[in-house]
Amino acid sequence: MSEKSLGYESLIPLLKPKTIAVLGASENKYKIGHLQIQALIDGKFQGEIIPIHQRATEIAGIKCYPSLQAYPGEIDLVIFCVSFDQIRPCLEDCAVKGIKSAIIFASGFSEAGEYGQQLQQELGDFARANGIRIVGPNCVGIVNTTNGLIGTFSPSILTVPMTGKRGVGYVSQSGAFGVLTYMAAAQNDITFNYFVSTGNEMDTTMEDFVEYMLHDDDTTIISGYLEGSKNPEKFKQLAIQAVKKKKPIVLMKTGRSNAGSRAAASHTGSLAGIDKIYDAFFKQYGIVRAEDFDDIITFSKLFNPDKLPKGGNTVIITSSGGRGINEADRCEAYGLNVIELSEETKVKIKEKLPSYASVSNPIDLTAAASVTNQELYLAPLQALVDDPNVHSIIYTDFAYMWDENSPQLQEFIEIARNSDKPIAVFSFPLDGMTYPRAAKTLVENGITVISGALNPFRGLAKLVEYSNFIQSADLEPQVEDIQFADVTSLLGVNETLSESEASAVLSQYGIPTTSREIATTADQAVHFAKIIDYPVVLKIDSPDIPHKTEADAIRLNLQTEEDVRSEFETIMANARRYKPDAVLNGVSVQEMLAPGVEIIVGAHNDPTFGPVVMVGLGGIFVEVFKDVAFKVAPLTRKDAHDILEELKGNTILNGTRGKAPVDKEAIVDVLLKVSKLMTDHKDHILELDINPLVVYEEGAKAADAMLVVKVPQTAKEIIGG
Amino acid sequence: MSEKSLGYESLIPLLKPKTIAVLGASENKYKIGHLQIQALIDGKFQGEIIPIHQRATEIAGIKCYPSLQAYPGEIDLVIFCVSFDQIRPCLEDCAVKGIKSAIIFASGFSEAGEYGQQLQQELGDFARANGIRIVGPNCVGIVNTTNGLIGTFSPSILTVPMTGKRGVGYVSQSGAFGVLTYMAAAQNDITFNYFVSTGNEMDTTMEDFVEYMLHDDDTTIISGYLEGSKNPEKFKQLAIQAVKKKKPIVLMKTGRSNAGSRAAASHTGSLAGIDKIYDAFFKQYGIVRAEDFDDIITFSKLFNPDKLPKGGNTVIITSSGGRGINEADRCEAYGLNVIELSEETKVKIKEKLPSYASVSNPIDLTAAASVTNQELYLAPLQALVDDPNVHSIIYTDFAYMWDENSPQLQEFIEIARNSDKPIAVFSFPLDGMTYPRAAKTLVENGITVISGALNPFRGLAKLVEYSNFIQSADLEPQVEDIQFADVTSLLGVNETLSESEASAVLSQYGIPTTSREIATTADQAVHFAKIIDYPVVLKIDSPDIPHKTEADAIRLNLQTEEDVRSEFETIMANARRYKPDAVLNGVSVQEMLAPGVEIIVGAHNDPTFGPVVMVGLGGIFVEVFKDVAFKVAPLTRKDAHDILEELKGNTILNGTRGKAPVDKEAIVDVLLKVSKLMTDHKDHILELDINPLVVYEEGAKAADAMLVVKVPQTAKEIIGG
Repeated sequence: MSEKSLGYESLIPLLKPKTIAVLGASENKYKIGHLQIQALIDGKFQGEIIPIHQRATEIAGIKCYPSLQAYPGEIDLVIFCVSFDQIRPCLEDCAVKGIKSAIIFASGFSEAGEYGQQLQQELGDFARANGIRIVGPNCVGIVNTTNGLIGTFSPSILTVPMTGKRGVGYVSQSGAFGVLTYMAAAQNDITFNYFVSTGNEMDTTMEDFVEYMLHDDDTTIISGYLEGSKNPEKFKQLAIQAVKKKKPIVLMKTGRSNAGSRAAASHTGSLAGIDKIYDAFFKQYGIVRAEDFDDIITFSKLFNPDKLPKGGNTVIITSSGGRGINEADRCEAYGLNVIELSEETKVKIKEKLPSYASVSNPIDLTAAASVTNQELYLAPLQALVDDPNVHSIIYTDFAYMWDENSPQLQEFIEIARNSDKPIAVFSFPLDGMTYPRAAKTLVENGITVISGALNPFRGLAKLVEYSNFIQSADLEPQVEDIQFADVTSLLGVNETLSESEASAVLSQYGIPTTSREIATTADQAVHFAKIIDYPVVLKIDSPDIPHKTEADAIRLNLQTEEDVRSEFETIMANARRYKPDAVLNGVSVQEMLAPGVEIIVGAHNDPTFGPVVMVGLGGIFVEVFKDVAFKVAPLTRKDAHDILEELKGNTILNGTRGKAPVDKEAIVDVLLKVSKLMTDHKDHILELDINPLVVYEEGAKAADAMLVVKVPQTAKEIIGG
Repeated sequence: MSEKSLGYESLIPLLKPKTIAVLGASENKYKIGHLQIQALIDGKFQGEIIPIHQRATEIAGIKCYPSLQAYPGEIDLVIFCVSFDQIRPCLEDCAVKGIKSAIIFASGFSEAGEYGQQLQQELGDFARANGIRIVGPNCVGIVNTTNGLIGTFSPSILTVPMTGKRGVGYVSQSGAFGVLTYMAAAQNDITFNYFVSTGNEMDTTMEDFVEYMLHDDDTTIISGYLEGSKNPEKFKQLAIQAVKKKKPIVLMKTGRSNAGSRAAASHTGSLAGIDKIYDAFFKQYGIVRAEDFDDIITFSKLFNPDKLPKGGNTVIITSSGGRGINEADRCEAYGLNVIELSEETKVKIKEKLPSYASVSNPIDLTAAASVTNQELYLAPLQALVDDPNVHSIIYTDFAYMWDENSPQLQEFIEIARNSDKPIAVFSFPLDGMTYPRAAKTLVENGITVISGALNPFRGLAKLVEYSNFIQSADLEPQVEDIQFADVTSLLGVNETLSESEASAVLSQYGIPTTSREIATTADQAVHFAKIIDYPVVLKIDSPDIPHKTEADAIRLNLQTEEDVRSEFETIMANARRYKPDAVLNGVSVQEMLAPGVEIIVGAHNDPTFGPVVMVGLGGIFVEVFKDVAFKVAPLTRKDAHDILEELKGNTILNGTRGKAPVDKEAIVDVLLKVSKLMTDHKDHILELDINPLVVYEEGAKAADAMLVVKVPQTAKEIIGG
């Protein structure tokens, strides 16, 4: 983790240098020390290029210097085209010269074993001590297309056009995949302003560049490829600021699958973490998750801060009935809503269309539109723009004949211009087939045109998701700060706490638990049962027996003194048989809760994100349907409400089959307290489970609890707590 | 429905004509009567073209005849390039000439209202009476690329190459979408042998062409675009034969979404049906469901009957760690299994790779492979071919430098040739970027190469699904024929049967139901309770009160005579209050079943497929998670087992949390009996529900039942049964 952050301004020399020195400059055209210089020339770098070569006087027509020191002026950026063993002395030269930034391509560091790790650590420390910001090592470099900085040896960057739409910054934790994404974007008319391959993140990290782009006025969309965050807390703060600025962060996060996360963990040595926690984190802070690189491209094309869709209601206009149906299926699969049009709107459209066209959604203009009657493409637009229930208008094909001078195109553009809705053409994914001739004019006038091969409906769905988040976002998320009694002493030294110990901790945090007393004799059990009132539950209380059912050491719904007396003995005997060396605190006598809806509230200490809260419906729901949701702690009240909405089983909480809804506020209250407990004691508590939390029409109560604490290393740690 | 099928041979003149007459031939180059002739010329039709024109002597250099009759020889196929009002007289001419097949492009028929429907009916009857097989009307036509029959006015068909892989037939219920798919396939090196746009299916249907292709030796894969089947029974029989012949049927079926199925219903007037029943039908009979047109292309490229994957275990080889992770995620999302490699295989591969490469799956050869060390692509192949746990081997990129003469390529091909596993290159979806130079040589040698833009991993997943089906398929599916007592008289005349009436029907079919008696007085109820034995359940029995809970007319677990007596009165009173005009048969006194796992068995009469059986886990599972599965009746025993496997809740039936598994054979038995009952009485029973069927470790019992019968039109129908 980057402990001390230097601030995004420190990246200016790196991303916007005026002078660039190339160490290891070479006269051999095939060496990267030459390719790099050529790339800067071909990219028309708007500054000075300074090849460093001991003997050569010029390379590729540019004057060389024998060393960094030999150059009389200031050098903003040094690109290391030198081998692994030259890195350290070269970096020392940089420090002497007072250089503030460098790119290191070489591999052989943290990804290559212990020695490399050690060296990387040392170089990183050296760089930080001397205020040198470094990209890499083990990276492809950086590109700034706004000033011609092609700071990479990868020649393929220059094979694609640089004429596409601007405003998108891109940071990648994978070099090769990053380059491919850069190129795919360029081929599809998006030219990234910045491309950064972060490599091993020895000094600068993904988060640093996100921060830079957040403050960079040229960047309107921040995008990237993420394997694992090294500083999630910083990421969270950046995401909150990005939401305020309406500057979307669109990230592809790989490692969703088991194999993928296995590979991600070994790939860059980054801690990939549990993918669903990342997913929760993204949802919680409004980061758009791209499924693939094409989502970044389509989102970038569709995004317009002044024309964000008000919701997911989508109308499809097509000249092929079959295609319309297919796209409608696709829309709904991505969560868009292919609405039925209102009668009013239908009537308005019908007036302008021949009888054989279909005015349901998808609107089928029929083949006549594509062949002979291109004016039909114009017919439904005004009515759809006027209908407030329509949020996005998508054409699957467009009047091919219209060029920029067609009056019909001008009329189309005029209507679109006066609308605040996304209007787009998603062409058939077939080379050069249905891409409208006037595409350029359409795009210049705010009508998006995307090749269907890029899966644009998924991109639209992501845009709707973003728009929905922005509309309801908490711009200043506040965690309610309630103070609770210190429970450090209750956390003890055992790895797993007994139920009564765990419940005591919950009680201190104001979480309602069952009344309970620990009986060590049958007489005591009977005594407590009377106080608590029948019916009661008896459970073994032992830190060594977390699975009480397995041990046959739990009895529900006991009604009489006799039952309590005899079951006390049975439970103690069963527990002793189950685990002879277990420490038995006694038998916990508890009130028998009335039936309610059972949910599970859990929390754990994630290695990447720290405390994370989980909720799900009890029993079979979790086991069979994995219907659980996560939020990264600390939770705001809105987070606690949102997490319940994310459950499929939310319909049960809302009351099904004529049953009354349960007290969701009571659940929210428990979630916030669990979040607080986990956050307050993140160095001690590893895991917490309330299973079940029984929820009623009014109130909720924890019927069982489990808590795992970190075994402290020394007694001092306990006391110091 | 086509009542009488003429047999696939009747389509030979249509698809393999030796002589084609073009009605409405035109000298005007822009009219379809000219375009069609030019298309046949440009397609190099291997037969005679006969333009019919009253005055012209030749068109496009080909001799004309003034009428069909004027041509001296036999005419196999007539293409109608005439307007709507000329269709009837022209068709009469065809009959006079004894012509056996025709293509009609014109629209204005069943899709255009009542008059068109009527005309289509008459023309269809006329064609059938005269043995003329017709494609259309309202279609784009047919193409047979093996003999140059470009029987379509759509000029775009000829803009794509005809040089791709052969063996794929394609039938489409959407003209425009079909043409686009034909073209996309051609651009991706698949040239369909046949392309058929079936239009309104006045005479020939989707099923007819599937049948033809099933018998056509040139066709190894049958593919298509389906909106709704007109003859599902025929489809089923064809699918069973196709499985026997290992000739896959790969269909895109649209209308998965609400909007999509709404549109499909109105588009060709076909009955789109409930999508999930189609889905069940496809699964049941081994029809591969393509999600989009690209699945048809990728499946066709991957399919090789001698190299079907033995399962879903997939190994990915990449030169980009990031890309590998991404593809691993994609694989798992499609249900493929990115396995961990065995130690033995890892050791073998490690020997051949440098230390910086990663030998977990995905195997990361690193950028070195793509840049300097192309031999690395060869390194892991032999070990993966030798490992029986590996089912498919996929490269995300390939040695770009190797051409057809490279010894390394030859070695690669040699290893692949001796393997029965699919080996493929799925290149990055970027124009001309990572497509291997030796692609042609690879493909010629059985190594598939697919552009990543086509989503090839989904195609691979479909291939695995097909392969799994083929491996376990019932080649001669037999429905067990058990005879049951005739229940026709029990089905009565009411729309909804009372529970006791419905249970009586089930009992006759050998389905275990609770013991029950109908009491009309409290005394009788007490009497029956004694016989049945306490505890008992009391429920109102009335065909007019299907929702007994809503009427508060059901009491569970009654233990005593007093309870039975008083509750009898309460139930009768509540029922009368709930629905004063309801016919009350009395109160059903039933045994109280012990708790077990509750499932729902349902059945309904689908408008497309007839009787369909459904199963799901009871209560909340169905309501919240929609965890249900369907099979089209009649079910085989294998179907009944398979349907349970398809439920997520199957894990509950198998026993979770240390619980014993339930008696799945008892469920299978009920499913087969329900299937039989629905099939025997498909003209009477509309709907059946057993909810719940309580299943135990041994046995199962229907605790409640509901049956809806079709109200007969006349008394005769009842008696006639």
